[in-house]
Amino acid sequence: MFDTCVLKFSQYSSQSRYSSPSFCHSVDGTKMTENGVATRAKVLTIDTMNPTVKKVEYAVRGPIVQRAVELEKELSEGIKKPFAEVIKANIGDAHAMGQQPITFFRQVLALCSYPELLNDSTFPEDAKSRARHILQSCGGNSMGAYSASQGIDSVRQDVARYIERRDGGVSCDPDNIYLTTGASDGIVTMLKLLVCGQGSNRTGVMISIPQYPLYSAALAELGAVQINYYLNEEKCWSLDISELQRALDEARQHCNPRALCIINPGNPTGQVQSRQCIEDVIRFAAKERLFLMADEVYQDNVYADGCQFHSFKKVLFEMGPEYSNTVELASFHSTSKCYMGECGFRGGYMEIINMDNEVKAQLTKLVSVRLCPPVPGQALMDLVVNPPQPGEPSYANFIKERTATLSALAEKAKLTEQVLNTVPGIRCNPVQGAMYSFPSLTIPEKAVREARDKGQQPDMFYCMKMLEETGICLVPGSGFGQRDGTYHFRMTILPPTDKLKILLTK
Amino acid sequence: MFDTCVLKFSQYSSQSRYSSPSFCHSVDGTKMTENGVATRAKVLTIDTMNPTVKKVEYAVRGPIVQRAVELEKELSEGIKKPFAEVIKANIGDAHAMGQQPITFFRQVLALCSYPELLNDSTFPEDAKSRARHILQSCGGNSMGAYSASQGIDSVRQDVARYIERRDGGVSCDPDNIYLTTGASDGIVTMLKLLVCGQGSNRTGVMISIPQYPLYSAALAELGAVQINYYLNEEKCWSLDISELQRALDEARQHCNPRALCIINPGNPTGQVQSRQCIEDVIRFAAKERLFLMADEVYQDNVYADGCQFHSFKKVLFEMGPEYSNTVELASFHSTSKCYMGECGFRGGYMEIINMDNEVKAQLTKLVSVRLCPPVPGQALMDLVVNPPQPGEPSYANFIKERTATLSALAEKAKLTEQVLNTVPGIRCNPVQGAMYSFPSLTIPEKAVREARDKGQQPDMFYCMKMLEETGICLVPGSGFGQRDGTYHFRMTILPPTDKLKILLTK
Repeated sequence: MFDTCVLKFSQYSSQSRYSSPSFCHSVDGTKMTENGVATRAKVLTIDTMNPTVKKVEYAVRGPIVQRAVELEKELSEGIKKPFAEVIKANIGDAHAMGQQPITFFRQVLALCSYPELLNDSTFPEDAKSRARHILQSCGGNSMGAYSASQGIDSVRQDVARYIERRDGGVSCDPDNIYLTTGASDGIVTMLKLLVCGQGSNRTGVMISIPQYPLYSAALAELGAVQINYYLNEEKCWSLDISELQRALDEARQHCNPRALCIINPGNPTGQVQSRQCIEDVIRFAAKERLFLMADEVYQDNVYADGCQFHSFKKVLFEMGPEYSNTVELASFHSTSKCYMGECGFRGGYMEIINMDNEVKAQLTKLVSVRLCPPVPGQALMDLVVNPPQPGEPSYANFIKERTATLSALAEKAKLTEQVLNTVPGIRCNPVQGAMYSFPSLTIPEKAVREARDKGQQPDMFYCMKMLEETGICLVPGSGFGQRDGTYHFRMTILPPTDKLKILLTK
Repeated sequence: MFDTCVLKFSQYSSQSRYSSPSFCHSVDGTKMTENGVATRAKVLTIDTMNPTVKKVEYAVRGPIVQRAVELEKELSEGIKKPFAEVIKANIGDAHAMGQQPITFFRQVLALCSYPELLNDSTFPEDAKSRARHILQSCGGNSMGAYSASQGIDSVRQDVARYIERRDGGVSCDPDNIYLTTGASDGIVTMLKLLVCGQGSNRTGVMISIPQYPLYSAALAELGAVQINYYLNEEKCWSLDISELQRALDEARQHCNPRALCIINPGNPTGQVQSRQCIEDVIRFAAKERLFLMADEVYQDNVYADGCQFHSFKKVLFEMGPEYSNTVELASFHSTSKCYMGECGFRGGYMEIINMDNEVKAQLTKLVSVRLCPPVPGQALMDLVVNPPQPGEPSYANFIKERTATLSALAEKAKLTEQVLNTVPGIRCNPVQGAMYSFPSLTIPEKAVREARDKGQQPDMFYCMKMLEETGICLVPGSGFGQRDGTYHFRMTILPPTDKLKILLTK
């Protein structure tokens, strides 16, 4: 997917000759160019690099985005385009789309960065006490010290208390919390533990289609087998157990399915799973002996009436000891989404339930090699799970800011669905949650042929055309997976309402 | 190495029965416990997890450190010990040992975290202008936005200019700079690209012994072949080309050596490589067609008279186009060491030289899957490569703080060597650079036998005894690798001088 990425360095100009087979290599790979300079064949080439890395694809930052960056540059250089600005609706990057950070969070981060500010009377007392709490848990009272590899103790305790509140009192052991570098880090680490076996005994992992491409990328890199189960677009991207069963039964013919990944609320599809469905999935995982991975980074992003976020952990424990004592579950959360949208800090955590003790020791060892997740991200995670409380000076403003952001997102979710459904050839499910719409697209037969002639996926062709003509940067559905013969794109609901309206009318 | 890590959860108590082979599993792994509760065998066990992960070892945070944490807890609970505090000399964690951050860096980070402070007149103007420069390069002017996966453009430009200054004008293309999550991230990513082949064609990577165990851990996880070349302890841990040749020739019998890793200044051994030696290594890499990886995170940590840091990049380019146009090199740097010691921010960069264009596109794709390195770490990296300049208001204080830290480290390097060499049974090379001493240890035959009887490495046994008796936390040489029959430990020179004196006299 990245073959469009053309890199230009003067130093390479003479080296383009290397690949010519007419040169005769000596033992050390040396050869002579026409002007008599000795050169060498490269050690690392596309043919001799890690083949699993080559299989990795990640559409969210693929060629469309690279072209968008070029277009922005061209605009800034004064080159005329049919649009005045590029609107990046390709990635769930709230701050880049103008969302403001939560004041309290940033005050505490500033205090932790430069503790001299603890003497500044303009900072509220609750921000100061939170900063002191975090700094006291840091080596040398500095965010510049490494933390424990599993994460700062007191932050993990705060995460555990947050989960207990969220899940109506179901207990949470801080020892089961691992702080991570964004949720991606946790997900890749868990998958890494699970992969083993060769040939028909190779680990298979079930992922939804459409999916968030971190999963397919990580599985490709780990050489695991990707098992696709399809969400039901007709039923608002819901998950059918019969489809899980079909996918699993087929996969058992050629691999060893060991894990089932769920994204709830859904990315890219925006659905929110019902409590019943979660129970069914857990029962399925128990029956079929699958390790459950619940990507719950959008847990605060629920907009549709009648929809509610239910954590897998809570449902699991409500199902009684037959399940809660046995089903292995990892749940992931992050500072990047919800109302905070702090992607750049790369904060996150995972909770592991019913993990074998020896495996857990291996997990702790594995994460220690990277020393620790970024401490500012850990501090931010602490604030997310332990925000201002009623009675504290920053509480009112915190609630105001959080509510404003979530209300705006809810409004934009509705607006997106409504407007998209007025466009001929586009059909959009309700955006119940998360930050994306994933409408289906009717592409005229002629355009499909034109795309195929150019060796492109029709929806990639469509999105590229959309970008060139309107400046709107979307991600083609093929980057997430879709049923054969259907076409989609993913669009975030994050642009400011006025821009979103322009974008939707385009 | 982590078998001493005993985890305690009540929820596991009943599950310990699972592993008993006397239980009869049904198809879905269900079985009945004595009290008739249906339970299931775990999906993920030590026998069914990723076998390459099991092979990973990382001594710097191994059982000794876990025991140190326990001892600290016991002390805090009032349990009597033969010492008043645990001194962690196991890891290069400067702030945890009391080193103060550079004021200017933290001021800018606070300003970037909470831009309201740009209106605060107590912050110096150069800090504000640096913060504005960074924020202007962030999406939505917020550190909460994702950056480009390769890192913020303007930071990469600043890194390139820093490298040009450092290397006396050798040109540096910002397109060759990748910002990373600490240097570890860059090193693992580069190794990942290099690994391919099976059996006797499997990629081999040459690493020094003693080494920093990130290398062995990453190679184990990637299933690559670790090729050991031994540093010459008698010659102050210098690197002999004849030893490189020996190790390479032997390795060629059973694998495909493709890369050579150098740590300069050395970790754990503290040597600083001469310019001549670097030239010899480059010539060797060219002759033998090896990809060079230069871990240069201690580039400012040079203390010994007559020693100087020479970057591989600079030496390579001084050797003329025969080398500078062909030898593939990746060099790594970080915010964690030198005079700043900002480990917790996980900032870093790598520069790649002469990398094949197609491979580079693959690298850019690969890093995009993790979205971006933490933005506060990128901001900090920017400050490190672009600190206050003469004439700016923060310059004098910056120089004062940097000089104080580096002078203190130089003093402690000397002190460590001198005092250790007065201890019978310990022999310590000069600490020319980096942050560690790696003295050899004569362990009495009786103690060696006692250790072996307990199934422990003798140096692990020694370090554990040292910890229990004195509270000093060291890392045994076996965690870094050493010649058979020799014993060492690694001790950081970071504790404050007064503590270091206590530590050394113990």
